[in-house]
Amino acid sequence: MKPTPMSELARRARDASRSLRTLSTRDKNVALLAMAASLREHRQTIETANGHDRRADMPAPKKDRLRVDVNAIAESLDAIAKLPDPVGGCEVRKPEGEFELKRKRVPLGVILMIFESRPNVTPEAGALCLKSGNAAILKGGSEARHTNEAMMRAMEGTFPAGAIQLVSGGHDEISELLGLDELIDLVIPRGGEGLIRAVAEQSRIPVLKHYRGNCHVYVDANAELDMAYRIVENSKCQRPATCNAAEKVLVHRDVAREFVPRLAELGVELRGDEAARKLLEMKPATEEDWAEEYLDLVLGVKVVGSLDEAIDHIEQYGSHHTDAIVTADKTNAERFLDEVDSATVLWNASTRIADGGLFGLGAEVGISTDKLHARGPMGLEELTTYKWVVEGRGNLRE
Amino acid sequence: MKPTPMSELARRARDASRSLRTLSTRDKNVALLAMAASLREHRQTIETANGHDRRADMPAPKKDRLRVDVNAIAESLDAIAKLPDPVGGCEVRKPEGEFELKRKRVPLGVILMIFESRPNVTPEAGALCLKSGNAAILKGGSEARHTNEAMMRAMEGTFPAGAIQLVSGGHDEISELLGLDELIDLVIPRGGEGLIRAVAEQSRIPVLKHYRGNCHVYVDANAELDMAYRIVENSKCQRPATCNAAEKVLVHRDVAREFVPRLAELGVELRGDEAARKLLEMKPATEEDWAEEYLDLVLGVKVVGSLDEAIDHIEQYGSHHTDAIVTADKTNAERFLDEVDSATVLWNASTRIADGGLFGLGAEVGISTDKLHARGPMGLEELTTYKWVVEGRGNLRE
Repeated sequence: MKPTPMSELARRARDASRSLRTLSTRDKNVALLAMAASLREHRQTIETANGHDRRADMPAPKKDRLRVDVNAIAESLDAIAKLPDPVGGCEVRKPEGEFELKRKRVPLGVILMIFESRPNVTPEAGALCLKSGNAAILKGGSEARHTNEAMMRAMEGTFPAGAIQLVSGGHDEISELLGLDELIDLVIPRGGEGLIRAVAEQSRIPVLKHYRGNCHVYVDANAELDMAYRIVENSKCQRPATCNAAEKVLVHRDVAREFVPRLAELGVELRGDEAARKLLEMKPATEEDWAEEYLDLVLGVKVVGSLDEAIDHIEQYGSHHTDAIVTADKTNAERFLDEVDSATVLWNASTRIADGGLFGLGAEVGISTDKLHARGPMGLEELTTYKWVVEGRGNLRE
Repeated sequence: MKPTPMSELARRARDASRSLRTLSTRDKNVALLAMAASLREHRQTIETANGHDRRADMPAPKKDRLRVDVNAIAESLDAIAKLPDPVGGCEVRKPEGEFELKRKRVPLGVILMIFESRPNVTPEAGALCLKSGNAAILKGGSEARHTNEAMMRAMEGTFPAGAIQLVSGGHDEISELLGLDELIDLVIPRGGEGLIRAVAEQSRIPVLKHYRGNCHVYVDANAELDMAYRIVENSKCQRPATCNAAEKVLVHRDVAREFVPRLAELGVELRGDEAARKLLEMKPATEEDWAEEYLDLVLGVKVVGSLDEAIDHIEQYGSHHTDAIVTADKTNAERFLDEVDSATVLWNASTRIADGGLFGLGAEVGISTDKLHARGPMGLEELTTYKWVVEGRGNLRE
């Protein structure tokens, strides 16, 4: 196979990953702090470059997503330096044989991150990979090119050569990278469902997917209704554009007459089934609504006859991301927690609680909707794998 | 999407997986023992069917691979019933928030196994999936069809409906199943590298891969040479057709003059580099040899100038499966164990030690060459995932 610019770049990452594999925690942290310091030092240059990307004729939300806050980024790199090193931890196993056996945490190797818009991802994803001993190939969006390049230039020389590389270029370059399964170990696409599906379809490299969250709150017959209202409000309204925001509320029919009308106080657009619409004026929900992730101040409302109906509905339409039950009935809560097949299930808590920070994972790398390798909120440990280490005394197989 | 026979079969598996998810350990074990008893009861019918598959005009090795030993299978199902249940274990996490957080082991859901020849895989893979709470779709080879069908008929009614299903049919059916990523959670192909690559290329479902083992034994300058010889012999000859058998020996030049001539005693075909061939008459090794998995009584021999050269060679040509160092030098051993990026690394032990049974995993589900989810020897736990369970008191996100 003839080397190409992309395969050469991936080869450089692979070579860098060999020394990163055994780089000490101290050396990694020194590099992270140097990256932060260099960004602060070049703040003006970076902000000037950022001004080029944020063109005057852009719509305000897009312009906002492209804005870079150098101090905030530098602080987050400082914070990553303070996190425990996910590499090197050993789990001692005691098999029957006469040898020592350990399962040791090691880096994955080379990680390709593909993302859009927000340029803070460039230094932050690079830092998370470095901390976990992985070489990073970062494919940012062309709309943030000047900012990304200015930040990479600012950080030059602060980390081992090849450890963090930025890729510019378009679809052809991405396609080529996604075929290099001998050199790259994992792809993490961050962005809309379309981007993630396109990457997953094309990639020969394993992909960690962050698909949609069509999250539910089920208000059971025995729910304390004030608590239920607060949980629905927080799940829906606290930050509606996030993947763990609730999109649907299912209300048991025994409390529907009292609870459904209170949903008017949320001040969001409601879309209900027939039973809900008899109790409060709202738009009718279509079949498509039940599967939809609004990421907006919109809430689907359905009245159900039983816990079973609620679980069946979530099984049929949910996205296996995050689902909650509000109830005072421990038996019902346990059935819900056991039978709903989602990455995070909650009892009497807001869906917004499903978060790497609140779960004590340190840095939030994302929320995986896969079942393999990492499920739900991901921390630095999920950017590592393990190896089996045997120390013998001439042991043979009989 | 219009239902097809394959999508209906996968839907049945998905439905069955919902009840398997919460099936008690006791009920699973009762089913496993009933499966074993039914196989014993229908032993004659199964052996007659097996006779149909093992046609008189077949080559002896193929006929041998197709032979079914009903008692041995029944015993292995009894043994699976005795293993600990991989489902339900809880890891309690203590985040800062005021809620309880657990990471609970749960089944993956629906597992598709694709395999060739050996018909014992049908009941055994079905039993491993059942024990781990997963519904199994088993695609066996057409050459074992009568045997597989007779065993499935014998076991009918012993396990929950839809929990274990056998698929006959060919490439079209496999292709269709590999597209059903909404219904199937994991594919495990067992067989030659060609089969696995074809499945991985085509599948939209995550694939757990068991690729080749091009395993090395490196004999260091400070190796105790009698131990080194025994380890090379055991790694190469104890069962040469397995993936953790050694295919190459790398010998430090300081001990090459003494050690390489002893390799003649192995009685295997040797293929050496120039330096090795100066010390013992053997065929020359080509560039292809260094990457080859022989699965036979053939051994590549290379003389290296240093530990670094050995590690570089393994990095370049190895398959990241299983590699061993023989040395009395702890520093060199530790460098090898840290720097060789393989699923299993061994110091002073045979590569054949890399085994689920010897590692205390109970059943051997396979040896994964993936880095994600499961690496190296896999047990029942690797057929599960986890879910995050939050028990709150009305907790909200601030």
